[in-house]
Amino acid sequence: MSDSSNSPLDLAALRQRIDTIDSELMRLISERAECAAQVAHVKTADDPDAVFYRPEREAQVLRRVMEENPGPLHREEMARLFREIMSACLALERPIKVAYLGPEGTFTQQAALKHFGHSAISLPMAAIDEVFREVEAGAVNYGVVPVENSTEGIVNNTLDSFMDSGLHISGEVVLRIHHHLLMSSITRQDKISRIYSHPQSFAQCRKWLDAHYPHAERVAVSSNAEAARLVKTEWHSAAIAGDMAAQLYGLEYVAEKIEDRPDNSTRFLIIGNESVPPSGTDKTSVVVAMRNEPGALHALLEPFHRYQVDMTRLETRPSRTGAWNYVFFIDFKGHVDQPGIVSVLEEVRGRAQDMKVLGSYPVGVL
Amino acid sequence: MSDSSNSPLDLAALRQRIDTIDSELMRLISERAECAAQVAHVKTADDPDAVFYRPEREAQVLRRVMEENPGPLHREEMARLFREIMSACLALERPIKVAYLGPEGTFTQQAALKHFGHSAISLPMAAIDEVFREVEAGAVNYGVVPVENSTEGIVNNTLDSFMDSGLHISGEVVLRIHHHLLMSSITRQDKISRIYSHPQSFAQCRKWLDAHYPHAERVAVSSNAEAARLVKTEWHSAAIAGDMAAQLYGLEYVAEKIEDRPDNSTRFLIIGNESVPPSGTDKTSVVVAMRNEPGALHALLEPFHRYQVDMTRLETRPSRTGAWNYVFFIDFKGHVDQPGIVSVLEEVRGRAQDMKVLGSYPVGVL
Repeated sequence: MSDSSNSPLDLAALRQRIDTIDSELMRLISERAECAAQVAHVKTADDPDAVFYRPEREAQVLRRVMEENPGPLHREEMARLFREIMSACLALERPIKVAYLGPEGTFTQQAALKHFGHSAISLPMAAIDEVFREVEAGAVNYGVVPVENSTEGIVNNTLDSFMDSGLHISGEVVLRIHHHLLMSSITRQDKISRIYSHPQSFAQCRKWLDAHYPHAERVAVSSNAEAARLVKTEWHSAAIAGDMAAQLYGLEYVAEKIEDRPDNSTRFLIIGNESVPPSGTDKTSVVVAMRNEPGALHALLEPFHRYQVDMTRLETRPSRTGAWNYVFFIDFKGHVDQPGIVSVLEEVRGRAQDMKVLGSYPVGVL
Repeated sequence: MSDSSNSPLDLAALRQRIDTIDSELMRLISERAECAAQVAHVKTADDPDAVFYRPEREAQVLRRVMEENPGPLHREEMARLFREIMSACLALERPIKVAYLGPEGTFTQQAALKHFGHSAISLPMAAIDEVFREVEAGAVNYGVVPVENSTEGIVNNTLDSFMDSGLHISGEVVLRIHHHLLMSSITRQDKISRIYSHPQSFAQCRKWLDAHYPHAERVAVSSNAEAARLVKTEWHSAAIAGDMAAQLYGLEYVAEKIEDRPDNSTRFLIIGNESVPPSGTDKTSVVVAMRNEPGALHALLEPFHRYQVDMTRLETRPSRTGAWNYVFFIDFKGHVDQPGIVSVLEEVRGRAQDMKVLGSYPVGVL
């Protein structure tokens, strides 16, 4: 029951309470920044080139925020605010520079901002190997590259780049991705005869398209953002793209969530020059080279099974060097600093032609 | 003096302190969101279509943050965090939709994000009158358009759009803008023979260009972001653009801050459907039509002088209707709800052929 005569009083009291909260928030954020500055001070006293950004520490903070968030804000939104607070505190010392697979408006940019916050400086690159090169050259601190899509599987360029690189994986970002059929203000919805999208998105929505637009021409373009941009000028065209591209180009939704698999998601890796200590909930990625012999794969996997290490992904790629016949990319739960994992990897190394640990890193929080 | 043996202890203590602060921050942000939800509840009880976003209230909060910020974070960074916290609290009820003059990577996008935070949904438009149209149609809550540049003066399209529109100005954003000469990784710095930029940026750097690159071809393009994009593929070209475009396209700096005037800045207006109550430090914009008679301008300005109202800007534009000869756009300090301002405007209205108040709004905080 509301009485408009007492509303102004309620509002005044609420606003006074908000002002008090804000003063307290400001005091605490400042004290947090002060603590972060002291952490940096302690670190640089020992090592002038010390790294201030600690992926395992940030993962722990965000995990706690997600677990303990009391509401009413969604826990993702609360974690986003903490991401920004940490980003600001870190930038006070030295802003993080991040290269990602561009162009803007893509999921990879979204993943980069989600992981590093807006106080980081982010740079789009034209290709995955450029991202690797910028990180290796020290022009940026970290890179963000797509590595896995639940429908299409692995992003091959990224795996190939890892085979040539000495970089470490220092984190992962998982984006749940929804695809929509989008049109512009000039589109005639009953006359859609052409649909633009990235080949991966077409693959992820194939059944839906076969059922609803069997006769429309499917034109593959370099990104969903590009697809969204194109339909702005063609009355007979639509695009398949996500919410971000829809917002960027002000498009309308013809149909929402048209992906064939409801759990559609894309995984991105953060790559950097340093290895990451355990955060408590970690994953490890290794690449293993095996000769193409009968039983080779079984021999490779057996130690994981025996030590009850939880494998989360296995990908096979033909070797490019000729020296190896096959390489396997394996992800499993655990950190290379854990004794059990050390034992497994020793056994695997003994059976393989070659093995390389790409990195142990916190399981994606956000 | 640092002793590496006690550093881990220091670090552990600092991190424990940060954890305690984070718990407290989370509790306070949640309570703030709860209060904001209650404010929304009180408002919708009286009016189901009530507007939750109050520009004057947000300006007051940010002003207080800027004044009271104790450091070590810069006050702009602290205000940015509060902007995000308010943006998140507001989005809990109903996310704000904002149209801006696109494309992405432009200063107008930067102004929109600076003013509304990242929980707002922002949509780039191809032209200034499209921004007006989207706000008028109710497709978005607010629009962001450039209105003034300290070197080039007024952005004429924006003023023309105001003459036809019933929208109110509900805020302003001022960006201090630096221009840099930028090159890509393939540019041969000693062979730069072509420079891309927006015509306004060329105008703002003319003297510097005449001194340093008198023979380079100057190619005007639609935005500085476009200029930055173009130099990625031409070894003999450079671009004039700001930090954001440099970051977006991963360009290197040939020369920094090349603008001829060190106080170079651009002003943007926030346009909406509602008028804004006083925030305590406000500005008012009016448009006045006068016949082209001797002494007309003096007659128009005299009341401002007599009431000691501080005029901050005066622009003259030829009337497009034919009915008026000239229109003047005037900005002054104060709010139309203040008695002194009411008196001035009454006198001005008596002397003018026509007068329209475009809006009273908080002086830009960030």
